[in-house]
Amino acid sequence: MSNHYILTLSCHDIAGIVAAVAGFLTENDGFIIESAQFGDPSTGRFFMRTEFVLGEYSCGFAALKQKFGVGVAHHFSMEWQLADTSIKPRVVILVSKYRHCLNDLLHRYSTGALPIEIPCVISNHDDLRELCTWYKIPFIYIPVVNGDKLAQEAKVWEHLEQAQAEVVVLARYMQVLSPGLVSKMAGRCINIHHSFLPSFKGARPYHQAYDRGVKLIGATAHYVTNALDEGPIIEQEVVRVDHSNSPEALVAVGRDSECLVLARALKYHIEHRVLVNGNKTVVFR
Amino acid sequence: MSNHYILTLSCHDIAGIVAAVAGFLTENDGFIIESAQFGDPSTGRFFMRTEFVLGEYSCGFAALKQKFGVGVAHHFSMEWQLADTSIKPRVVILVSKYRHCLNDLLHRYSTGALPIEIPCVISNHDDLRELCTWYKIPFIYIPVVNGDKLAQEAKVWEHLEQAQAEVVVLARYMQVLSPGLVSKMAGRCINIHHSFLPSFKGARPYHQAYDRGVKLIGATAHYVTNALDEGPIIEQEVVRVDHSNSPEALVAVGRDSECLVLARALKYHIEHRVLVNGNKTVVFR
Amino acid sequence: MSNHYILTLSCHDIAGIVAAVAGFLTENDGFIIESAQFGDPSTGRFFMRTEFVLGEYSCGFAALKQKFGVGVAHHFSMEWQLADTSIKPRVVILVSKYRHCLNDLLHRYSTGALPIEIPCVISNHDDLRELCTWYKIPFIYIPVVNGDKLAQEAKVWEHLEQAQAEVVVLARYMQVLSPGLVSKMAGRCINIHHSFLPSFKGARPYHQAYDRGVKLIGATAHYVTNALDEGPIIEQEVVRVDHSNSPEALVAVGRDSECLVLARALKYHIEHRVLVNGNKTVVFR
Amino acid sequence: MSNHYILTLSCHDIAGIVAAVAGFLTENDGFIIESAQFGDPSTGRFFMRTEFVLGEYSCGFAALKQKFGVGVAHHFSMEWQLADTSIKPRVVILVSKYRHCLNDLLHRYSTGALPIEIPCVISNHDDLRELCTWYKIPFIYIPVVNGDKLAQEAKVWEHLEQAQAEVVVLARYMQVLSPGLVSKMAGRCINIHHSFLPSFKGARPYHQAYDRGVKLIGATAHYVTNALDEGPIIEQEVVRVDHSNSPEALVAVGRDSECLVLARALKYHIEHRVLVNGNKTVVFR
Repeated sequence: MSNHYILTLSCHDIAGIVAAVAGFLTENDGFIIESAQFGDPSTGRFFMRTEFVLGEYSCGFAALKQKFGVGVAHHFSMEWQLADTSIKPRVVILVSKYRHCLNDLLHRYSTGALPIEIPCVISNHDDLRELCTWYKIPFIYIPVVNGDKLAQEAKVWEHLEQAQAEVVVLARYMQVLSPGLVSKMAGRCINIHHSFLPSFKGARPYHQAYDRGVKLIGATAHYVTNALDEGPIIEQEVVRVDHSNSPEALVAVGRDSECLVLARALKYHIEHRVLVNGNKTVVFR
Repeated sequence: MSNHYILTLSCHDIAGIVAAVAGFLTENDGFIIESAQFGDPSTGRFFMRTEFVLGEYSCGFAALKQKFGVGVAHHFSMEWQLADTSIKPRVVILVSKYRHCLNDLLHRYSTGALPIEIPCVISNHDDLRELCTWYKIPFIYIPVVNGDKLAQEAKVWEHLEQAQAEVVVLARYMQVLSPGLVSKMAGRCINIHHSFLPSFKGARPYHQAYDRGVKLIGATAHYVTNALDEGPIIEQEVVRVDHSNSPEALVAVGRDSECLVLARALKYHIEHRVLVNGNKTVVFR
Repeated sequence: MSNHYILTLSCHDIAGIVAAVAGFLTENDGFIIESAQFGDPSTGRFFMRTEFVLGEYSCGFAALKQKFGVGVAHHFSMEWQLADTSIKPRVVILVSKYRHCLNDLLHRYSTGALPIEIPCVISNHDDLRELCTWYKIPFIYIPVVNGDKLAQEAKVWEHLEQAQAEVVVLARYMQVLSPGLVSKMAGRCINIHHSFLPSFKGARPYHQAYDRGVKLIGATAHYVTNALDEGPIIEQEVVRVDHSNSPEALVAVGRDSECLVLARALKYHIEHRVLVNGNKTVVFR
Repeated sequence: MSNHYILTLSCHDIAGIVAAVAGFLTENDGFIIESAQFGDPSTGRFFMRTEFVLGEYSCGFAALKQKFGVGVAHHFSMEWQLADTSIKPRVVILVSKYRHCLNDLLHRYSTGALPIEIPCVISNHDDLRELCTWYKIPFIYIPVVNGDKLAQEAKVWEHLEQAQAEVVVLARYMQVLSPGLVSKMAGRCINIHHSFLPSFKGARPYHQAYDRGVKLIGATAHYVTNALDEGPIIEQEVVRVDHSNSPEALVAVGRDSECLVLARALKYHIEHRVLVNGNKTVVFR
């Protein structure tokens, strides 16, 4: 039976927050494993993440959660979450035809490196079915029929709901989502973009990078918002290239960064290390 | 007038430490700016660093320090330090003939990037006098006479004491220090070694790296102990090289890493971000 | 039909080699795509790699090869190889229980990122059979019976010969090979070691790294020789870690480097970019 | 007396160029030290750089140059340069008030790491005079008077001509140059921009980076053209940052990248490793 929990919170930054939170945990037989905090001077907002275990004299998770809500959280008008690490988050992955990111995520999932449930993989193409089948994960093929993207999206959403998806990962899903769907998944839909944003938004970023002659190419994982490729950045990485790399070589080299960056971002997210701060993120690594 | 302080502490890891420290600060009108902690599961030791400002209703720094010592610190048997950030630490730099690290540190000192006092630079060679003079820093030339290293060291120590040196930086000082001197500066003497330790200890590490054919070379900043190049590592960095790099090219390329790594390590140290943990360090970056 | 070839050579470094090689190719209707060379001043040895295509007026690959051998190669006493890029090299992978490197290599193989044939995967454990089967690659299980390692090795060698293996990759194969087997595969057996060599040779390098408190961990791909973890290094990479990483966390973080480094080293090798230079390598990237 | 030369060239890519160049050098008692080439498939343009020494039976540098021009270079309609490495290129540095890049370049100049002559440093502010004086380099203060930038530029150009500047380095020179001046220095004026271009062009890039919440910041060295911050990129580097970095912290962290990137770009340039290819560069490192 688990007794390992993660508390995340944000609120207006005033004196006494850490003392109140740490005091509350100590009074309730909580033992802090790891704690991090950040006060943003530009907004006056305070962010905190605390991992703790509960001892035998605690009132139990449910009671603790209730007490925290009416007590400390209420007092400081906090936005907060309290997560039980024994419950694996349900992550649905959306893909199109590219296999590298999906292969990487499924491998990490199967070895336990990513402690998640994957109720299903959804795709607008049928190409990656076999891979999912091998990992014993339901593959749901939802094509765009007659160009009706909204109808396709409606079906996708239905499956996300059925799957009780807490997190949605766009692992090179080659469709721009409608504002309606995006808003339903605000703060929990992660996209991998194959450039070092804000450079090279939109289509064919490796070709854009080739044309500009940059000496490093990158990948960016970010939360999806309605401004294309402009959501809060979670993680980025770059890799050195040179004049001899064709656009195709950039695509090949970049794939490794895409996999790494997406896997890291998802790991930070499910470990509750990422707190959204306006159009930016606080990442407690 | 300053009211910005840094508390660092370590003690046996039990429940309630964060609550006690944060509670103490809140009760004494302290406002936490930044806080980090680490419990080492392999040793059961707890480490914490907290930056805070004092408000107008506080009892003042001296009284606060006294109260913390007899109260929280005593209760948890802490090793602790409480530093006033308005007082710049006194850093003495020891050099021989190589100029790059000294030039880098003095530049950072003069621009305020490294908020330190440099009461003097001490050297066993006279080569770098002019550079120090330009930066208006006393240069003290203490050669080894007739091979009597201990006599030279005794003079060095005398000057360190006169200078009230809190930190000693060996910026490519090409002398092995005696155990006696090392022990007097335990935990506050930083050396830069021009390899990625533990590879290539001792003399001519770039030539060792060349002979081994490594594809990355590095630099390591560490606290000096009596085991040569085996003290607690503070910071490391590497840079890519290839077969075409001669030993001389490795020396040239490596210099940039040496400067960067030493400057970072010193910055972490003077910001009280480095806590020694046996033969390792905790670095709260 | 292919007409894309790679010439690699090494010889004593004297004047006129590039002119002779380039002249030979031009006279034989060869068009140079890419060329690199290196003269090692410490040994007086010259290394060269040239990619070229043959035009319609050439004498054809077989005749060209014969002419080069009796002409330029003979004149300069070259060690040389001339490879037809349309023929995929046959690579046999040896594994034990760890899946990450194998999974990565098979993925790259299946997408064409690594243009190789994999006649079989050989293992001393049966754990990774299913993965190979999915990729439609024969999996050959050769356990060590009654501790008789040489008998097991003899069977491994038999299968390597049957498979006509040109390259052997030890993808976390947890067995030290006997001198006899090593010498049979000199210069074409690549191992991945999970440390930044020469640091942390031998067993449990991540635990060694944890104990030393290094701030970067790494991985090294090298040719296998009879000196354990001391063969010519092909490629290395590092990744930043800190005090909070447990040995298990280092293992998890390090896996990504292992995969990347091994895949890069194998790619360089099969593209004939790696030339052995004593106990070092020349890598024409 | 020197006999070490560097030939750089570009021309339409057809068969036989390497053979012709290497053959020419061999016939004239040249010994190739290092050679690199690149054929750009997107433009059909060929680029080559060859370092060589001349032996005792050669016709001498001047005659060789003449012969090459009327022979090989003419035959292939090459753009070409033949440089004598014993003649240090004359580099004029333009600065405003920021000292870090200038300090870094002058240090490298004084240690011989950058084998250049610096006939003078020119600035629109008087702040950095003392530093130049210490390095015994004439400091020329040319302020903008009454907002007349063209008049100031005219004086700058006069001094560049008097100084016989072959290379001009804008080491954080905070003035946009007029098209007229830019065109006079085409392909030999290097600027350091304090962002990872093409992201964050123009003013205050670190503040732009802060606002966007990127996880890596960078620096870019490029040739100056009349499209602001859009000239051919020579070198780039990035460094990891996080949410806790204020804009001021980004400025401080970024300075190290600026210095490194500018120094590397200048080194590549003076070693004739950079060939302009449209709005991109070929860098033979």
